[in-house]
Amino acid sequence: MKETSQEIDRFLVELLTNVGKNLEQDVTKTKDVDTKSGPNDLVTNFDKSTERNIVGIIKQNYPDATIVSEEGFGDVVNSMAGLVFFVDPIDGTMNFVKCHDSFASMVGVYLDGKPLVGAIINVMEHRIYHGGPDLGVFENNHQLAQPINSTLKEGLVIISGPMVLKNYLNTQEVVHKSSGLRVLGCAGIVFEHLLKGKEVLYMSYLKPWDLAAGRVLCETLGLSVVGVDGEPVDMLKSQVVIAGTQKVVSEVLETVKNSK
Amino acid sequence: MKETSQEIDRFLVELLTNVGKNLEQDVTKTKDVDTKSGPNDLVTNFDKSTERNIVGIIKQNYPDATIVSEEGFGDVVNSMAGLVFFVDPIDGTMNFVKCHDSFASMVGVYLDGKPLVGAIINVMEHRIYHGGPDLGVFENNHQLAQPINSTLKEGLVIISGPMVLKNYLNTQEVVHKSSGLRVLGCAGIVFEHLLKGKEVLYMSYLKPWDLAAGRVLCETLGLSVVGVDGEPVDMLKSQVVIAGTQKVVSEVLETVKNSK
Repeated sequence: MKETSQEIDRFLVELLTNVGKNLEQDVTKTKDVDTKSGPNDLVTNFDKSTERNIVGIIKQNYPDATIVSEEGFGDVVNSMAGLVFFVDPIDGTMNFVKCHDSFASMVGVYLDGKPLVGAIINVMEHRIYHGGPDLGVFENNHQLAQPINSTLKEGLVIISGPMVLKNYLNTQEVVHKSSGLRVLGCAGIVFEHLLKGKEVLYMSYLKPWDLAAGRVLCETLGLSVVGVDGEPVDMLKSQVVIAGTQKVVSEVLETVKNSK
Repeated sequence: MKETSQEIDRFLVELLTNVGKNLEQDVTKTKDVDTKSGPNDLVTNFDKSTERNIVGIIKQNYPDATIVSEEGFGDVVNSMAGLVFFVDPIDGTMNFVKCHDSFASMVGVYLDGKPLVGAIINVMEHRIYHGGPDLGVFENNHQLAQPINSTLKEGLVIISGPMVLKNYLNTQEVVHKSSGLRVLGCAGIVFEHLLKGKEVLYMSYLKPWDLAAGRVLCETLGLSVVGVDGEPVDMLKSQVVIAGTQKVVSEVLETVKNSK
């Protein structure tokens, strides 16, 4: 099992290194921008070409795996049996388009439903976060320590903008109990912050490809990742996810209960 | 006048380069942390020692100037006559303490009330933004172009967390009309984003030292910086400031009017 993890980890680091180099070239090019679910849910030609490229390379190297991916070049997946790859070619497409910065590319791998390996590249900063339960978590070649198990009062929180403005699930109370709010617009960059202990909580509505890699890495470093009912997340559906230190996730689950 | 600007610009770049090197060493050290106006308004021993250092060097080089500074090592200033330096030794102290990242040090210089030179260092990324109306604006040695005069709909907005959660001055409507909200927790880093066109608006309650350098640089690049009444800001008081592209600031002033 450790050998499989190591092999996939090396594969993902090489894959995302190359993807990152291409996206760094693409970021200042003219883009075809379309909207998906609403005016602020963007997709570009580069999301599609990057995903097609990633999916092709995974299929070449892991022909028996199934692939869940954002822009539809993967498989129709109804089961977590065997090796499942989750692909987000450009996470934070709005930042990619408007800021030319603060976006990521992510791949999470699960074996029979269990987190195996995850990898996230912060493209413009050339930092790859990767590893899994058999390996530990690395920033490039440097192993990361477990973040301190801080309380809500001791830390900054990251909550999706639309969720906190609506006070959905009592999220404004969470902000008031914390050291303050940050909103970054890219799940991959948020997971980077959580892994390094910069913030203590992330709360957002996430699709499987938004969550898959970050969940592997967070859980490996002793962080907690659950749904709003406190139960493990379902990797085949979209849901509100609470990720953070164990103490903070307990506190937030209590606050969520009070919203009902 | 241009010679004065050039001389002060060179002085500030050298000053902030040294300040940045020291703060980068300090960021992981144990800190004495106190609160000021509330539990999330922090000050550390490093804010104080950095300001004492900056104020001392300014006084040595510009003995006739007056200094407005955050932690009280400057002068009592009631007039904008002559050369006035505004000093923020650590801007984003919460980020400095919790994230070890995304904080700045800033100095803004005004001559008889007019913006002359400003300098902001993004400490951990080693980027200094500096210049003024006689010089243009530079990121380190690279001159920046004017950001595109985008509309609200076309861009991301940065609004202080407490202000937008309370919907103070109709700020939630501003968010809804835009491409989305970001919250960063450091005025200096926000000004960096505005200068590079990553976001199109910043709205926050700012003290003179939070605003001084950013205002010089923004106005030099054709961005607009006003109070909520649309009038020029008063550099000797704290106030809600609206900074952004000219189109966006006009749109936001209309939205603010509707909040009354």
